Amino acid sequence: MKKIKIGILGSTGSIGCNSLEVIRNLINNGIDIKIAFLTTNKQTELLKEQVKFYNPEFIFINDRKKSEEFIKGFTGNKTKVLNQYSDLLQIIRENDYDILINSLVGFAGLNPTIEALKSGKNVALANKESMVVAGKLINSLIKKHKSKLLPIDSEHSAILQCLEGEKENEVSKVYLTASGGPFRNFSREEMRTVNIEQALNHPNWKMGKKITIDSATLMNKGLEIIEARWLFDFPSELIEVLIHPQSIIHSMIEFSDGSIKAQLGVPDMKVPIQYALTYPNRVKSDFQKMDFSIYNTLTFEKPDIDKFECLKLAYESLNNDGTYTIVLNAANEIAVNLFLESKIGFMDIPKIIRNSLEKHKSVNNFELEDIIEIDKLTRLDILQDY
Amino acid sequence: MKKIKIGILGSTGSIGCNSLEVIRNLINNGIDIKIAFLTTNKQTELLKEQVKFYNPEFIFINDRKKSEEFIKGFTGNKTKVLNQYSDLLQIIRENDYDILINSLVGFAGLNPTIEALKSGKNVALANKESMVVAGKLINSLIKKHKSKLLPIDSEHSAILQCLEGEKENEVSKVYLTASGGPFRNFSREEMRTVNIEQALNHPNWKMGKKITIDSATLMNKGLEIIEARWLFDFPSELIEVLIHPQSIIHSMIEFSDGSIKAQLGVPDMKVPIQYALTYPNRVKSDFQKMDFSIYNTLTFEKPDIDKFECLKLAYESLNNDGTYTIVLNAANEIAVNLFLESKIGFMDIPKIIRNSLEKHKSVNNFELEDIIEIDKLTRLDILQDY
Repeated sequence: MKKIKIGILGSTGSIGCNSLEVIRNLINNGIDIKIAFLTTNKQTELLKEQVKFYNPEFIFINDRKKSEEFIKGFTGNKTKVLNQYSDLLQIIRENDYDILINSLVGFAGLNPTIEALKSGKNVALANKESMVVAGKLINSLIKKHKSKLLPIDSEHSAILQCLEGEKENEVSKVYLTASGGPFRNFSREEMRTVNIEQALNHPNWKMGKKITIDSATLMNKGLEIIEARWLFDFPSELIEVLIHPQSIIHSMIEFSDGSIKAQLGVPDMKVPIQYALTYPNRVKSDFQKMDFSIYNTLTFEKPDIDKFECLKLAYESLNNDGTYTIVLNAANEIAVNLFLESKIGFMDIPKIIRNSLEKHKSVNNFELEDIIEIDKLTRLDILQDY
Repeated sequence: MKKIKIGILGSTGSIGCNSLEVIRNLINNGIDIKIAFLTTNKQTELLKEQVKFYNPEFIFINDRKKSEEFIKGFTGNKTKVLNQYSDLLQIIRENDYDILINSLVGFAGLNPTIEALKSGKNVALANKESMVVAGKLINSLIKKHKSKLLPIDSEHSAILQCLEGEKENEVSKVYLTASGGPFRNFSREEMRTVNIEQALNHPNWKMGKKITIDSATLMNKGLEIIEARWLFDFPSELIEVLIHPQSIIHSMIEFSDGSIKAQLGVPDMKVPIQYALTYPNRVKSDFQKMDFSIYNTLTFEKPDIDKFECLKLAYESLNNDGTYTIVLNAANEIAVNLFLESKIGFMDIPKIIRNSLEKHKSVNNFELEDIIEIDKLTRLDILQDY
């Protein structure tokens, strides 16, 4: 692994910035990395700095107005600014890069994941929603096009690492660890009145808004259960969520003989990102190392699925391999947005999702168009009321 | 792995009994296991039961008197009683078994390890003293005779498991966990007056006397550092002892990218024993599984090497690949015996070892005869004074 070309969707977000730090570390370790493209929604100032340092072939700014402003003042030597989203998709399909880092948020990440896999590229996936809504479809594309999909979440990276050298049929349990979020010790009553600031105050991880709210409702863990089911082909009965407030053990596997393997480290996304880029090898890093005299106590508790109903809804929607997870995801995205716009309370998030799931009739055979249609209808149906 | 023939040295001890339970589990899982031989020091009653259940080809009773008594009343169908230790060594060399489980205590385990490896057998080793005094020699025998050596300690089994699918040159640190023993929170002053009962009261593991005292002095961890150095070819600078009073994480490896892998489970020797027998595969077991609602808090602290001087002595004797570890081991065996005979105090154990090490002149080229000679001289020299 001496030469790789990488494209990053969402390079100015938390995962994107961490990915560029990882790339810098790899370059410092003698790996020749070229950047195919970088994209942002509207953080053009940061993108400009990234362009200066990493010289991507292409960049794309999703926000129309920001994009036009940017182009006026832009004097990037060899970097070409893409005007249209369709141009970006074409680059994702046709450019000769090796790995797509997809750190887009929500359903929007699905299309690029599919386009990259279809063209035989490897995808390092932070956009778990892709797998949640289209796991089955994505797995068939991977098989057909001999592409690879590597997880970037710390939990799925932990599972992947614990499985190295082991046989998947010897797995007897998967412990998906969860920090428990900011409301772990809140009563149901207290949770009814939490505000946006409280929900955005994650105890261990600094992340984007959507995933931070998902962590507060535990829907993030629910989405990860579904992602794990498709990434590793684990039946959902094997997957157990374990609250581990320190976020040091990133997940664990129990094998048939009773032995458990865990992957640990300080909460730092750079480790799983780098693992996804160098898999199955490892490369030396100067990232912060674990110090057991600081992180000297690790605790575990069962999640309260009555209090965190999103987790229950995710388990339920997975019990059927059909289209419930598409509805779960769409309703969650809309509900999180409504909460962030102060239009609903925190405890309305699971209510909205449950309502959408109850209305839905799941089918087992579906294609990409069906996914897009179900996603759209679910959103519209909720938005009617707000 | 459908058919294995196993010989057990020390079948009535703690590791021996656990090994037979593992064998029962493997048989229940459809693996055809034959027992080549079982041995005991003097627990003939238990041995008789084991013979009835496992039908070994040979048995050996080390205690002369017990052996003679046993032979009189013995009516084992096909089991032959060996009269002499030399007969046992011949069986270890010449019988067609596949794996020797060596759970003898102390230096006495060395010869059988060597004889088994020389005849191309695999050895599942609980007798860590073999590796401590003759690691270099044993490694050259393994290479020459294409035999395999698999560790039975929970710590080295954990390391082996964490290394599966990984590259040894990507290991940046080895965390050897230690319960800390019964005197973890004692002051130096309090430790001066501890009695045998207190020292034999290990908080987590039920084991033989010698290893229990070694756990109380932390010499057990010292011996394990030396064992790890030879088993996995880790330089001693990479090995860090971490006190983990719950004995749930059995050891950990940190890799060059900062990622850490740990192997966990309830404190139960059956898991590492079975892993040594089925490696690199795993077999289903009905052994007690980990329950994180019971073991819900894991803690870590640095060992106090001024208080537990044995640990310091082990590190020091390893810094030189020469003969110091032979002296360390011999002096420790004698000192532990003297303590168990109430002839010395608990804090005299490291004193005696340090004294022997200070008198010794280490050499770097040595053979089995030199090991035996250095061991004998060290013992005699100490015993002069008692």
